[in-house]
Amino acid sequence: MKNVILASGSADRQEILNRISVPFKSIITDIDEDSFKSRISDPIDIAKTLAQEKAKAAKKSLLEKKIEGIIIAADTLVELNGQIIGKPLDEKDAFRILKLLINRTHNLITGIAITETSSPKMIKDYESTKVEFLPLTDEEIRNYLKCGEWKSRAGAYSIRDKASLFIKSIEGSSSNVIGLPMHKIFEFLKQEFNLNLLNEY
Amino acid sequence: MKNVILASGSADRQEILNRISVPFKSIITDIDEDSFKSRISDPIDIAKTLAQEKAKAAKKSLLEKKIEGIIIAADTLVELNGQIIGKPLDEKDAFRILKLLINRTHNLITGIAITETSSPKMIKDYESTKVEFLPLTDEEIRNYLKCGEWKSRAGAYSIRDKASLFIKSIEGSSSNVIGLPMHKIFEFLKQEFNLNLLNEY
Repeated sequence: MKNVILASGSADRQEILNRISVPFKSIITDIDEDSFKSRISDPIDIAKTLAQEKAKAAKKSLLEKKIEGIIIAADTLVELNGQIIGKPLDEKDAFRILKLLINRTHNLITGIAITETSSPKMIKDYESTKVEFLPLTDEEIRNYLKCGEWKSRAGAYSIRDKASLFIKSIEGSSSNVIGLPMHKIFEFLKQEFNLNLLNEY
Repeated sequence: MKNVILASGSADRQEILNRISVPFKSIITDIDEDSFKSRISDPIDIAKTLAQEKAKAAKKSLLEKKIEGIIIAADTLVELNGQIIGKPLDEKDAFRILKLLINRTHNLITGIAITETSSPKMIKDYESTKVEFLPLTDEEIRNYLKCGEWKSRAGAYSIRDKASLFIKSIEGSSSNVIGLPMHKIFEFLKQEFNLNLLNEY
């Protein structure tokens, strides 16, 4: 059985893999996201590039430690009218972001990159899911922010948690909105890395 | 603060409310689902009727125990080409259901009913979400079934768990697919029962 390594410290992504009962290790990479963001303006390009950079950094670190495995990396951002909306800086910034998102539709884009320590192969792709919020009053937004789930989350919300109260609908992959488009990862692992997550776990 | 009472023993529905940090009690009702299913053939009608019957049974039981509160009841079923697909009887039946659902789109319908012990008001509604599966081989289906998450679940799958590997996309409420359309419940509680889940919890 191949090792699965998640190049992400995100508790949301780790929970997805845990719920699928796939044993995995996680590794946190340290890449300079801002240097890429200043050079790339297309939201899909930036999500795919950052995922690839995380996968490359994880691979380097694993090879140094002589650990073998398949590496899954991802980067999630919110796109609204062609603009990238990242993680909120603080609660005030989270309020500004949610004000932008309420009562309209945005896209949750996750770039993914999959590679293997034993091979030069690097698969890059992305998944985009439309998300539509209900309208909310300023008081409701402020009260939502108190729960703290906006922290470290693209778009300042967590669909599986309290934000489910104001998410009217989504269109696309539901696991993508949490940070890992699992059906796409399932297919790539099967077709490109000879690992079938349904048959082997 | 009003008591929130969930008229459901479903662990999935309880987890949704827990993740929203709404304190609630749950009560399991015992209604004769088959007697309604034999009289009603429309999937939306049956989901709404069963939700209402659960809410009525819970209300009766709570009034007897002199417990006050707002009661939320729900009933979830899968609809494919106008036919109702319920919970699988056993693993063999779960295999038959998944064979029907793979590689095409079905609807996950949840009927909801909300009432209050102190009032005759009874709100009935439903939410329908389209779900599209990837194609799967018979071997993959059989291996998926081994994890057991098909048990007691309409359509024989759990979108938040291992089934996320083969759910290509959804269209509609994401919490509805787990068994409670939260944005709809949020709006009804606010408009009809004077309870704002964002402002009060």
